Amino acid sequence: MVSHIRAVPLEKAYRLLNHGPTVLVSARHGGVQDVMAAAWACALDYDPPKLTVVLDSATRTRSLAEEAGVFVIQVPTAAQALLTHAVGTTSLHDDPDKLRNAGVKLFDMPDYDLPLVTGCSAWLACRLISEPSIESRYDLFIGEVFAAWADDRVFRDGHWMFETADPALRSLHYVAGGHFYAIGDAIDVSSR
Amino acid sequence: MVSHIRAVPLEKAYRLLNHGPTVLVSARHGGVQDVMAAAWACALDYDPPKLTVVLDSATRTRSLAEEAGVFVIQVPTAAQALLTHAVGTTSLHDDPDKLRNAGVKLFDMPDYDLPLVTGCSAWLACRLISEPSIESRYDLFIGEVFAAWADDRVFRDGHWMFETADPALRSLHYVAGGHFYAIGDAIDVSSR
Repeated sequence: MVSHIRAVPLEKAYRLLNHGPTVLVSARHGGVQDVMAAAWACALDYDPPKLTVVLDSATRTRSLAEEAGVFVIQVPTAAQALLTHAVGTTSLHDDPDKLRNAGVKLFDMPDYDLPLVTGCSAWLACRLISEPSIESRYDLFIGEVFAAWADDRVFRDGHWMFETADPALRSLHYVAGGHFYAIGDAIDVSSR
Repeated sequence: MVSHIRAVPLEKAYRLLNHGPTVLVSARHGGVQDVMAAAWACALDYDPPKLTVVLDSATRTRSLAEEAGVFVIQVPTAAQALLTHAVGTTSLHDDPDKLRNAGVKLFDMPDYDLPLVTGCSAWLACRLISEPSIESRYDLFIGEVFAAWADDRVFRDGHWMFETADPALRSLHYVAGGHFYAIGDAIDVSSR
């Protein structure tokens, strides 16, 4: 799988989130690492690319991201629906084996001290931009993307290829109660 | 179409946005009304429901929302891809007939002075929560949802019904360059 990972130019990084997928948030600090699911993540700017993500104060991932000052937003695939639901409904506070029990395997990109989730379709390495007021009042965090990668079987040359890639690589879009939708058919209006 | 519109309980309103659709933002003030497309809109809280939306300072919709203090976030359908792209690529500043040329028809809900876009699948009436610091630095706006409605052919009893509804009612998820995806197949992990 790692052989399919390619760097994404920063000016195209917003496209990894533009279609509104549910994401996984991961962070590592002091030898502890955690992964959570977040449906409330969104692009915020193009250049430099920024994003917003809502991180509940009860999550260990949030405190790890605050301590480390960096975190990863990654786009899970349809094949990872069960994993995504599992990391979104259990806490490292309650289950020290959360990641193993959820089937999460982490890997590092060379030169980056960040926990990336194996099997996702895209990864955005983010630096936390400190905004204490909105963090405390809304649990709303802003990250600046300083590196991005994608699986070139489903995102290449700056474009998602959901219409031709393996359906198992489609992005997930969570509603509630364990109910997701995969992304669907392409609709192109540019040539009309 | 109006006969299919039903109120959505506020505690379920986040579900209208949870799967990350591209939305239309509309606002009216002093006899002027405008509609724009926004891929960067996201749920922020459950109760009371809140959302974030990025509104570029060049848009007339933003200034109307600021003047009125209220705006509408609505979920366009696959059948409205061309309309969505049109209102996202033209400005009322340049074309006073923007809405007519884009094929936008507006309607009002009784007792609400808000411009709603006909043919969408869901509408969230929002009160602007003033956050001048993030508005000016990030173009990031926070809205509190005070009323919500949905087309009961595709959202009812608190659930999207994309898997059984007319595919023309599926939500749109924009990437770039006139390229959208419609929402796709359901994936349910709750009973596993």
